[in-house]
Parts: sequence; structure tokens; C-alpha cells
Amino acid sequence: MAKKLWGGRFKKKTHPAFDAFSSSLPVDHKLASYDLTASAVHCRMLRRAKLIDQKTASKILRALESIAKSLPKAGNVFRGTQYEDIHSWIEAELVRKVGKSAKHIHAARSRNDQVSQATRMYCKDKTQGLMRRVRLIQKAMVMKAKAYTHVVLAGMTHLQKAQPVLVSHVFLSYVEALDRSRERLEDALKRIDVLTLGSGALAGTNLPIDRAWVKKQLGFSRISQNSLDAVGDREFVVELVQIIATLGVELSRIAEDLLIGQIEEIGIYELPEELCTGSSMMPQKKNPDFLELARGASGSLVGNATALLVLLKGVPGSYNRDLQWDKKPLFESVELIEEVLGLFEILFSKLRVNQFQAMVSLKNDQLCSTDLAEAMVLKGVPFREAHERVGRLVAHCESEGM
Amino acid sequence: MAKKLWGGRFKKKTHPAFDAFSSSLPVDHKLASYDLTASAVHCRMLRRAKLIDQKTASKILRALESIAKSLPKAGNVFRGTQYEDIHSWIEAELVRKVGKSAKHIHAARSRNDQVSQATRMYCKDKTQGLMRRVRLIQKAMVMKAKAYTHVVLAGMTHLQKAQPVLVSHVFLSYVEALDRSRERLEDALKRIDVLTLGSGALAGTNLPIDRAWVKKQLGFSRISQNSLDAVGDREFVVELVQIIATLGVELSRIAEDLLIGQIEEIGIYELPEELCTGSSMMPQKKNPDFLELARGASGSLVGNATALLVLLKGVPGSYNRDLQWDKKPLFESVELIEEVLGLFEILFSKLRVNQFQAMVSLKNDQLCSTDLAEAMVLKGVPFREAHERVGRLVAHCESEGM
Amino acid sequence: MAKKLWGGRFKKKTHPAFDAFSSSLPVDHKLASYDLTASAVHCRMLRRAKLIDQKTASKILRALESIAKSLPKAGNVFRGTQYEDIHSWIEAELVRKVGKSAKHIHAARSRNDQVSQATRMYCKDKTQGLMRRVRLIQKAMVMKAKAYTHVVLAGMTHLQKAQPVLVSHVFLSYVEALDRSRERLEDALKRIDVLTLGSGALAGTNLPIDRAWVKKQLGFSRISQNSLDAVGDREFVVELVQIIATLGVELSRIAEDLLIGQIEEIGIYELPEELCTGSSMMPQKKNPDFLELARGASGSLVGNATALLVLLKGVPGSYNRDLQWDKKPLFESVELIEEVLGLFEILFSKLRVNQFQAMVSLKNDQLCSTDLAEAMVLKGVPFREAHERVGRLVAHCESEGM
Amino acid sequence: MAKKLWGGRFKKKTHPAFDAFSSSLPVDHKLASYDLTASAVHCRMLRRAKLIDQKTASKILRALESIAKSLPKAGNVFRGTQYEDIHSWIEAELVRKVGKSAKHIHAARSRNDQVSQATRMYCKDKTQGLMRRVRLIQKAMVMKAKAYTHVVLAGMTHLQKAQPVLVSHVFLSYVEALDRSRERLEDALKRIDVLTLGSGALAGTNLPIDRAWVKKQLGFSRISQNSLDAVGDREFVVELVQIIATLGVELSRIAEDLLIGQIEEIGIYELPEELCTGSSMMPQKKNPDFLELARGASGSLVGNATALLVLLKGVPGSYNRDLQWDKKPLFESVELIEEVLGLFEILFSKLRVNQFQAMVSLKNDQLCSTDLAEAMVLKGVPFREAHERVGRLVAHCESEGM
Repeated sequence: MAKKLWGGRFKKKTHPAFDAFSSSLPVDHKLASYDLTASAVHCRMLRRAKLIDQKTASKILRALESIAKSLPKAGNVFRGTQYEDIHSWIEAELVRKVGKSAKHIHAARSRNDQVSQATRMYCKDKTQGLMRRVRLIQKAMVMKAKAYTHVVLAGMTHLQKAQPVLVSHVFLSYVEALDRSRERLEDALKRIDVLTLGSGALAGTNLPIDRAWVKKQLGFSRISQNSLDAVGDREFVVELVQIIATLGVELSRIAEDLLIGQIEEIGIYELPEELCTGSSMMPQKKNPDFLELARGASGSLVGNATALLVLLKGVPGSYNRDLQWDKKPLFESVELIEEVLGLFEILFSKLRVNQFQAMVSLKNDQLCSTDLAEAMVLKGVPFREAHERVGRLVAHCESEGM
Repeated sequence: MAKKLWGGRFKKKTHPAFDAFSSSLPVDHKLASYDLTASAVHCRMLRRAKLIDQKTASKILRALESIAKSLPKAGNVFRGTQYEDIHSWIEAELVRKVGKSAKHIHAARSRNDQVSQATRMYCKDKTQGLMRRVRLIQKAMVMKAKAYTHVVLAGMTHLQKAQPVLVSHVFLSYVEALDRSRERLEDALKRIDVLTLGSGALAGTNLPIDRAWVKKQLGFSRISQNSLDAVGDREFVVELVQIIATLGVELSRIAEDLLIGQIEEIGIYELPEELCTGSSMMPQKKNPDFLELARGASGSLVGNATALLVLLKGVPGSYNRDLQWDKKPLFESVELIEEVLGLFEILFSKLRVNQFQAMVSLKNDQLCSTDLAEAMVLKGVPFREAHERVGRLVAHCESEGM
Repeated sequence: MAKKLWGGRFKKKTHPAFDAFSSSLPVDHKLASYDLTASAVHCRMLRRAKLIDQKTASKILRALESIAKSLPKAGNVFRGTQYEDIHSWIEAELVRKVGKSAKHIHAARSRNDQVSQATRMYCKDKTQGLMRRVRLIQKAMVMKAKAYTHVVLAGMTHLQKAQPVLVSHVFLSYVEALDRSRERLEDALKRIDVLTLGSGALAGTNLPIDRAWVKKQLGFSRISQNSLDAVGDREFVVELVQIIATLGVELSRIAEDLLIGQIEEIGIYELPEELCTGSSMMPQKKNPDFLELARGASGSLVGNATALLVLLKGVPGSYNRDLQWDKKPLFESVELIEEVLGLFEILFSKLRVNQFQAMVSLKNDQLCSTDLAEAMVLKGVPFREAHERVGRLVAHCESEGM
Repeated sequence: MAKKLWGGRFKKKTHPAFDAFSSSLPVDHKLASYDLTASAVHCRMLRRAKLIDQKTASKILRALESIAKSLPKAGNVFRGTQYEDIHSWIEAELVRKVGKSAKHIHAARSRNDQVSQATRMYCKDKTQGLMRRVRLIQKAMVMKAKAYTHVVLAGMTHLQKAQPVLVSHVFLSYVEALDRSRERLEDALKRIDVLTLGSGALAGTNLPIDRAWVKKQLGFSRISQNSLDAVGDREFVVELVQIIATLGVELSRIAEDLLIGQIEEIGIYELPEELCTGSSMMPQKKNPDFLELARGASGSLVGNATALLVLLKGVPGSYNRDLQWDKKPLFESVELIEEVLGLFEILFSKLRVNQFQAMVSLKNDQLCSTDLAEAMVLKGVPFREAHERVGRLVAHCESEGM
């Protein structure tokens, strides 16, 4: 078992099964680059504050850079190690490269604020990326709406044909929905984009640190105000994962629309073959797999939002080890929605609307009954009465087989 | 069974069990005042657009006002009626008071946009109310922090004593957390505070309505851009209920802190008797019921957020009857958190900190080991090494029984 | 404020807002009849154990009976009262009818075991009821399957036509699914149907009670073994609500099948008008409201299962006041599924299959490609190869417009 | 991109991003051994039915065995491949080893029933394993209860001392709770342990298969009755994951009990150092990490149960690609609970009860007020009155500082 960052007081080694269970390295290694960036700025701050000498600082900074460079090349660099988390792993690498003096970097910080900070940097990066991805789908949808401006189909409520609508109106309704999610991401960013380094384990530090300088260097827009709150807060993770869950459900509704529209008898939407599969037993099928997978992906996304709230429920303030479980649902939701969004962009770039089938969907002559009723209103008939009269007319036509 | 707003085409009556099941009146009667306000403005808009004559409009407006006035007096006004929803009930009342011409008010609107609008008005009202309530608790917390500025207790991480912290630091950490929830409510308001009237059933209306005027009269800050999206969107409900869930979990953590702090052996927090109960079998007990109920309330709040996402998952775009189920979790979450917040305010106004017990909690001499280690850092010892040296010292003292 | 069951040690009255918040009477009055039954048996047991004299016991028993009789007649009997819960209310009624000696009934029991017991009796009763309701729908489905034994339609996977299947095969697939839920209810019953009375507040009682006799009188099949566990256990509630959630989701899938099958272009299922509604704006519509509501009902059902798990998460063993929140999700889920099941029975009794449209759905000539491939297998061609050959044939036919 | 099992009709290749997204190999490779076992029996059945000749069958069987043998040795055997799932991968391996004639094995089965079957075999295996693990913890708890039979501590309700209880009574309350979970697993097994092979893609097969023989060979206890239901059913996964979620929450309550009991001021439980960690900043700490992680693990477990219900909600009957998402939450919950259970066993084997602190917890003289009140009952005082008298006595003593 590798060396722990603590252990002075302990007489027994931790149990190997516990080491394996409690190590977050298989998950949190994704925070490596963020932690390295934050560590470099922390190191420079310590030097400015004379808490570390120039020479040691330079060595540490060079080592951090070198670790950062080797990260992408070594996919399974963490394999087989038994470090508690990515932060212990980075510390060990530092000591390996710089020697004992590398330990100076841990002045005025604790793993509690370090973990919080790296997680926030990950969330910031990913939130901005998701906003860009949403924009790209919106663009593809608008393009597609423009390509079919002239096409009308039977708009439905309750899966019943209701009134004629433009297919572009349908696509733009999706653009609107996505815009809400994008806006929510933007709002959440305010609460993500916060410097928490300097909070220590729970009570800050007595050392003369310069948080304003660190904030500026790392490009944050706020500084956390209370150290107890800062180390125990994971609401920024909850919020991001909740927004992703809502976005996932939003996309499941779009998927359902398209799934129904591609049913053979309706045939309004023709899905790109690139996103469909065949069947191992029924050679004639063109299965809309991506849409089904996108609809189903909402399951994990909602599950993760629930998981995080359950995780935090009833946990005392400040840092408790429970919080470690925040990363798995976070990373999983982020990566899943990234994939789904990317594929929706491809879908909407290549989606074809079958204009003939759209026209066929309108054959129901009653689709204009609302328009008929509204015309009667302009002639002074109360709307409800116009509505009832048109209704009786429809019933009469039906019973006469017209 | 009462008259439905539709029915021209139907030959059979709906089944009484279905009527009972599908009526939302037992739930949505809480939207009455919002619907009446929106209806009055809609009526005035119709008159301005000459879609309804002056005399009818005046009669309708007077009737709406009179219905509004009778609402608070008649607690069980809806009892025993079989109306589909509050909107049908209001329509029936209108016709009873004004006669058939009341039906003119239904021009240029549908229940789909009407329901959306009233729900948004409810959410706006309640969101603003929740923001005020959060502010009130924050004030009570700040007052209490001021009252005990000089008191220090043993701050904990992992339920282990870690470092001394001010009790005011603890209370202000709660203020910070609550501020995030308040900010989230403020952000959500942007997406709630939207005029959706004018969206019709799904495709808007051909009638010459004036949405900008309606928006101004009702004090909204935005107008919905796409009718299909507007009638099918319930994400504003999801978002509000998600924020409430997070707030509920946040409060469960505060409750846990206080619950632990009030355990006999710790005894730092003395809860107000007004929020505690005794036991039917054990006369000596002073049970912290409110805190337990507050902790447990997070269950329903998280459940409701989950319920809404499940509800929307995979539902086609535009209006589907499934959406009716949005109100129960919404109302339940709003009312529950209102009560919990109100009681937390009382709790923090009356909470007493037992200063002697706070002092006792500090008796663990090792609580300043971090300070000791940091002092060594200022003398040039690398932090990790200082940490280890202090750790060995602690182990030594323990084994010597010091 | 009404008298509490405790209070000897308290100097201050509880806050009215807290009384309102913490009273479970608006919810748990549904346990009244179960509590009365259990109380009567408890009273008789106390008499047999000579912990209460014959005369007092008789008076109490008569009073319990009289309360039980007045329950159904007085719908709003609990209105305006401020009792903590239904158990306090019953105690107050007892004292009102019998006088102070009624208090003898509280020997050897606590509200903790009393609440557990009444909740279990409710769950047992309802579980058995749900099993009967499931059976009734299954019967309706089997009848309908028999009525259409000769009808074939295009079976779908991925919402794509796959192979011809009998409509009776479809309906019997629902019978199978429901049978699993019924079986789960039966299994859960074992863990519900347990005597917990006698567990006291947490540590049983010193008084000479006879649990075996009580068990027999109340018809339970097991006796709880550990008092700490018995008063804190709510897993029987979780399990029932989880099964209901799964059943709700199961029904949402059946609803989705029928919703798709009733789309105009497909038109295989004709829903009974008794379970449909019209539109206030579009007179031609026949909206499948029940199916949409049934699909959406799964939201609350899943939400309640989540709520209960969140509620219990991290709560210490034995009784904590948090547990009070178990009843709302329990009652809501039970009542909601009862309604949905009842209406599904009506739906399946009246559902009509449009045989012409079922036949039309088969017009896709490729539906028998699996059969063709399997025929090749019987002639010795490996299945995958047969599959590929048929696949190429289909592609060829399509490109030739055949 | 690797060869797909279908593709005859498709002109375009699937998009690489879609291939990566839709491949379940990174997850479902855990089903490999189950699929191989089922495939071997399927192959032997085909031979018995003369759907495949003796020689080909032998070759296939040998190849299956050889694949099975190479599985454990090659940890990352699936890396970099682009197979759709483990079943395609196994097929490709078969063809590589046996040649084209390996394809004969796909007669009379589809990936739909194949996936269902392998998932069921995984669930069966794991369910039985979980039952064994639960038994092991129960044994450790019973041993520990026996080791401390004479120790009494202050039992709590509402986190308030209530009555004295034996520490063994506490531990046995956990044994009871775990026994419910074990029993639930046993019940679920009935619905897991089902042969679904033979259901084909959705409509069974025309080929002369022998399901009874396959069932016997594979050791199942039931045969699925309806092919449409069999390929679309994932309720057995839901049920298992729900039981695990409840078990996780159950364990979170035990963890909470121990976490509170190990607080310095209470100090009744001494956790084994092997499951604790120190702090990087505070050398004196012995953090109860395992218990915190165990408490927090309930988050993912509940989230996964929710995820699966969301996944299935509103999905049409029979197979839809959404179902693929069942495996991730299933595997994750199973593996997580396996680890937590294993560590709880270690915890209870090594847990120490501090008998002195247990005694100290009893110093509250009022702990016997229930006993006092019960003694008065035996002398004929109604319980509620005895209760009030003792209550007033307690209040008096307190105000006198006694």
C-alpha cells in the first residue's frame, strides 16, 4: 500500500479492502489537470507570501508542468496504484521529481479545499462546454427549420391531431426549450465559478495568504466567504447535475416526438441511417436506436440528480467523507449529456422531413375547426358557443361517414 | 355530473370514476385567484381588440371580481362539485352570474395556455415569498451570530473535533448556504415570469390579440416565443421544485448539526421548548421534534423533484394530459418548505448556545495541532513534515495517557 | 391547543405554527379504524393480564366501538382540532366517553409501537386489496384476448414493425407483467403482516403482556423479534411503495402501447369514450386522457418511493420523529394506484380492437423475413447467413420500389 | 468499425460517434461468462433438435470453452474494439476460431432473449452472493452481541436518552433489519431465476426448440410464458436494485448509529483503525471514513433505483433500445453493495464497545422513569396518570438542580 498523506498517529495499516473501497483515484483522476493548474497558482502565491523560497517554488512549478505534460500520454498511468485520490498521487509524483521539499506546497491548504477547488474548475469547464454544445444543436435545428419553411404538418396535443403547424414551428419549439437549459447553465456558472482555496480543512489558515491574487490568476469571479461552508458545499454539483437531468428529460421529449413521427404509418421524419441499426433477426428493420438511447439516457441523468440529493441529505456541515461520492454521478452525467448533445447535433443536421407524409397528415378535414370557430367569433358568436356548434357539426359529419 | 367545456362530439358520458380521477379541482383550486386576475386582463384585452363588446366585458369583469371576493370566505366552495378543474368552475360561476355571454371570454385562449399562465403566476408569487422567508431566517441567524460573537466551540469534520471555530462562524456558514438558494430562486424567476397566454391550445390564435399589453398589465418580464413550447413546458415547475429540494437538503444538514449539538453529552445547543415535545412513555425527554421533522421533510421535497422529472420523461411535445400531475408536487413542495422555513426562523430566534458546554468541547488539547504545524511552517519546515511531527507527538501523548 | 399526551415536564406551550406543522392528524386519520381494532384487542389483552379491571375494560371496549361507528358518518370529524395525531384524538374521545379511567389502556404500549401497528394493518389491508384489483384487470385482459383470438397485428420492437403477433399475445403479455406485481405484493405481505405491539417506545415493556394472544386475535402471521428494530422499521412501507412504483411504471408502458396504437394513422385500438375527453378549442378531438394520466401517474409513484428512501437515509435506529413523514407518500401511492387499476379494468372491459386496421398494419411484406430466414435454417443455412441473404433481398426490393 | 450482426439492408455506415455511444461492450463485458454458459447449452439443444450437426456443434462448444478460459486472463481484452456488445464480441471470436459455420448457433435465438438471459444469470449469481454476504455480517453481529451480553447503554429515541438497553439488543436489531433484506433477495430470486431464451426477438421462434431441457440444463426454476413480455421485461433488474437501495439505506442507519456512538463525548463505540483515516492537516484525528462512505453510498444506490424506473417509464412493450441502459445501474449497485457489505463484516468483527462509556451514558437518573411509571401501573394507577406524575417529578428535580 502506498504512503498516505497522514498516518503519524496510526498504529495499524488500513485494511486493503478498505483502501480499494475508499480510494477515489479510479474516478477523480479526471481532476488531474485542474488540480495541477490550481497547485501551480497556489505555489506561486506561497512564494509571493514568502512561505516558500524561490528555488523550491521553481522546482515545484517545473515538476507540475512536467506531470501535466505526461498526463495525456499515459492513459492508464493510475493503474495498479493505491493512492487515496488524485491529489495524493500528484503529491507523490512531486516528491519523486523534486524531493522532500515538494511538501512545502501543502502549506495553507488542505485536501478539503483542494478537492472543492478542482471539482469547481471541472464543473466550470464542462458547463461552458455544454453551453457551446447546446448552441450547436440550436443552430442545426434552425438550419433545418429554414430548409423546410414551407412544410406544414398536423400539430398534435394528446397524440391527437389538433391544428396545422409549420414543421419549422416544431423545430423552433425545441430551440426554445434548449435555450432555457442553456440559460440555466449560465446561471449555475455564477455559483460554480468561485475560489474556495484558502478555506483549509474547515477553518481557513493562519498563514498570510492572498486569495484575491489567486482568484485573479485562476480567473474566478467570486471568492467564498465562509470556510466551513466552502469545504462542505456540494450544491454547485447538485445544481449542475439537476440542470443536466432536466435537459436530458427535455431531449427525451424531443426524441419521443421524432420516434412517433418516424413510425411507418406516419413517416414524417426520416432518420439518418448513420444513427440507426438493423436487427439481428429481422432484416427489414431500420431501428431508431439513437433516439431510444437518448430517451433512455434520461434515466441515469435523473438518477444521478437524485443520488446527489440523497448523498447530502442529513450530512453534518463542513467536510464529511460522504462527499467523496459526488464525483461519480457528476462525471457520468456530464459525459453522458455531452455524447447525447453531440449526437443530437448530427441527427438534426441530417434529419429529413418527408413532405408528402407531412401533407398526408393534414388530410383530416377537421383540423381547421379551431379556425372555423375563431372565424365565427369575429362575427360575434361567443367562443364557447362557436366551439359547441363546430363540435356538433363534426359529430354529425362523422356519423354520416363524411 | 357537471357540464364539461367540450362535449359537442361525444355520445357517451364519461365514467364517474374517470371524472373523479381526472378532475384536478381538489388540487388546482389554489390557482383560483391567479386565474381570475389573468382572466380579467384577458377580458380587457379582448375588449380593446373589439373581440368583445364594452357591456359584456363590464359584466364579466364585475363577475370576476365578485368571484374573487367570495373565494376566501368559502373554504369548501368546491366541495361536491364535479368540475374538471378550477378553470371550468370559474367559467361556470361566470355563466351563472353573467349568462351565456360570459362565454365570450374564451375567445383567443385555450385551457392549455390558461393553465400554464395561472401556474406561472402561482410560482412567481411563491418564489418571491420564499426569497423573503429565506431573508428572514438569514437575519435571525446573523442576530444570533452577533449575540454569541465571543463563543468558540470545537469545529468538526468527519464528526471528529478538528479546530476551534467561532459559533458565529458556524451560523454564518448557514447564512452563506441559504444565500445560494435565494440566488437560485431569483434566477429561476426569470424563467417563471413569462407571459404564455396567447399560445392557444398549441398553435396560437388567428384573432388580433395584444400580448405586449397583457404582459404589461400582468407585470411579466418576458413573452413566450413559441406556442408549441409554451403549452408543453413545465420546466419552470421542475426548476422551482428542484431548488426547493436542494434547499430542503441544505436545511436537513443544518438540522443534523443542531441535532448532534443538542445531544445530552455535547449539550452546546439548547432548543426552544416551543419546538420540542415530550414522550408519552418517558417523562424526562425533551425531543427535538422540529429538527427531526425538518430533516425528514427533505424526503418529500426530493421525491417531488424526482416525480416531476419522471412525469415529463418521454412525453411528446406540446400539451398532453400527463402534465396535469405537475401541480400536486409543486404545491406540496412549496407549502412544505414555507412551513419549514417559517419554523427555522423561530428556531434561530430562540436558540440558545450553552457557552459552558462550548468551552468544554474545546478541552481536547490536540485541537490546536494545525496551528502548531502552521507555526512550524513559518519557521521553514515543509508543511507535510510539520504535520507528521505533530502527528507523532499526538500518538506519543496518547500512549502515555497525557 | 388541545392537550398533549405528554407535557408534565414542559413549562412553555409549543408554538402554534409548530403544532400545525407537526400534527399528523390531517394525514393519519385514515388509520383510525385500524387503531381502534388494535386498541380493542390490546384492551382485552390487558384485562386478561389483569392490568385493567373487567369493568373499565368493558367501558373502554364499548367506547371504542362507538367511536368506530361514528367514524364513517362524520367525514370532517377531525376538522379544527389540534390533536397531534389520530391516536391522541382517539384517546381524547375515549376519555370524553369513559372518563379518566380510559387512560388505563395506555399501559404496556407506546405511540411508537401503536403507530407502527396501525400502519402495518393499513398496509396489509391495502396490499390484499391491490392484489384483488390486479386480478380483476387480468381477467378483463384475458376476456379481451379471448374476444380477439383470431386477430393478428404487426408486433413491434424499437417502434418498428418486426413480426406478426396475435393481439391476444399482446394482451397476455400484460397479464404476465401484472402477475409479477401481484406476486411481489404477496411476498411483501409476509414482511407487513407482523405484530409489533409490545415493543413499547423502544425497549418493550416490563408488564406481563401476551403477544402470542394478540397476534392470534389480530390475525397476524409473525411477531416482531426486536423492539428497537420494530419501532424504527419503515421498510415495509418502502417495499410496498416500491412495488407500487414498479407497477405504475409497468402500467405506463401498457398505456404507451395503447396510446401509440390509437393514433389516427394506426387506429388499431379504439378507446372507450367514457375514458376520453374533448378539447375546449378543437371540437374534433377525442383525447385519450385516461391513458395519459395513467402514464403520468407513474411520476408521483416513483417520486414517493424515492421520498421514502430519502426519508430513512441516515436516520438513527429506533424511533425518530422523521418517520412521521412515511404516511403521506404511502397513502398517496396506495390511493393513486387503486384508482388507476380500477380504471384500467374499465378500459380493458370496453377496449375495442379495430380488426381492419390490425390487418392493415401487416401490409408490410417484409414482416415475415424472420420466418423466411428460419425456413432457410431448416434447410441447413447458418442463421446469420440466412439473415444476411434476406437482408440483401429486402434492400434490393426497396431500391427497386417493390 | 467492426462488423455488425446486421447490416444487409444498410447503405451507409453508422457514425463513429454513434458507434462509441451505443456500444455496451465497456459495460456488458461482465456478462461474458454467463453468455458463454447459456450459449453452450443453446448449442447443445440445437444439436439435439438437429438444427445443427454434431461436428459443428462440437467445434462451437470447444470454442466457447476456450473463449471462457481466456476471459479471466485478459483483463483488457475488449479494449479498442468496436463491437456493439459482448454478444457480438463473442460471436466474432467464435467465427474467428470455428469459421463461418459458427453462425449456426444463432438459430432460434435473438440478441433480445440472449441479453435478457445473460442479465438474469448475472442477477441470480449476484443475488445469491449478496444473501451469503448478509449472513456473514449477521454472524459477526451476533458474535459481537455475545461478546458484550452484559453491557447496557442508554437507548435513544429522537437522539434523546430514553431507556436502558443491552448493547446486544442494539446489535440484534441490526440483525433483524438485515434479515428482511435477505428475505427480500430470496423472494426476488423467484422472479429472476427464469428461462427467457426461446423468446426470440419478440415472437418466439418457429424452430423446434426444447425449452424444458434448456431450463433444466441451466438450472432455472421457471420458464417465461410470453415472448413479448420476456424480451421487454426489466422489472427483475428494478426489483434487485430496489432491494439493494433499501439495504443501502438500512446500512446508512446503522452507520449513523455508530457514527454518533463514536463521537468523542459519547465514546461508546471504538472503530477499528483499519477502517479509519487521519487528516492531512489535523494530526490528532481518527476519522470514521468507512462509516461516512457507507452512509453516503446509499446515494448512488437510491439514485440507481430511481434511474431504472425512469428508464422504463413510458417505454412501449417488447424490446426497445432504451433497455440497454439497465446494466450500468445494475452492475454499479451490485458491486457497490458487495463492497459495503464486505467492509461492514470487517467492521463488526473488530468493533469494540467501551464499557465504561456505556455505563457513563446511563448516569442520567431519569432513564428509569418508564420503569417507575410501569411499576405504578401494577399498583393500579392508569398509565397516563402515572406518566404525568413521573413527569412532574422530573421537572421538579430539574428545577431543584437534582
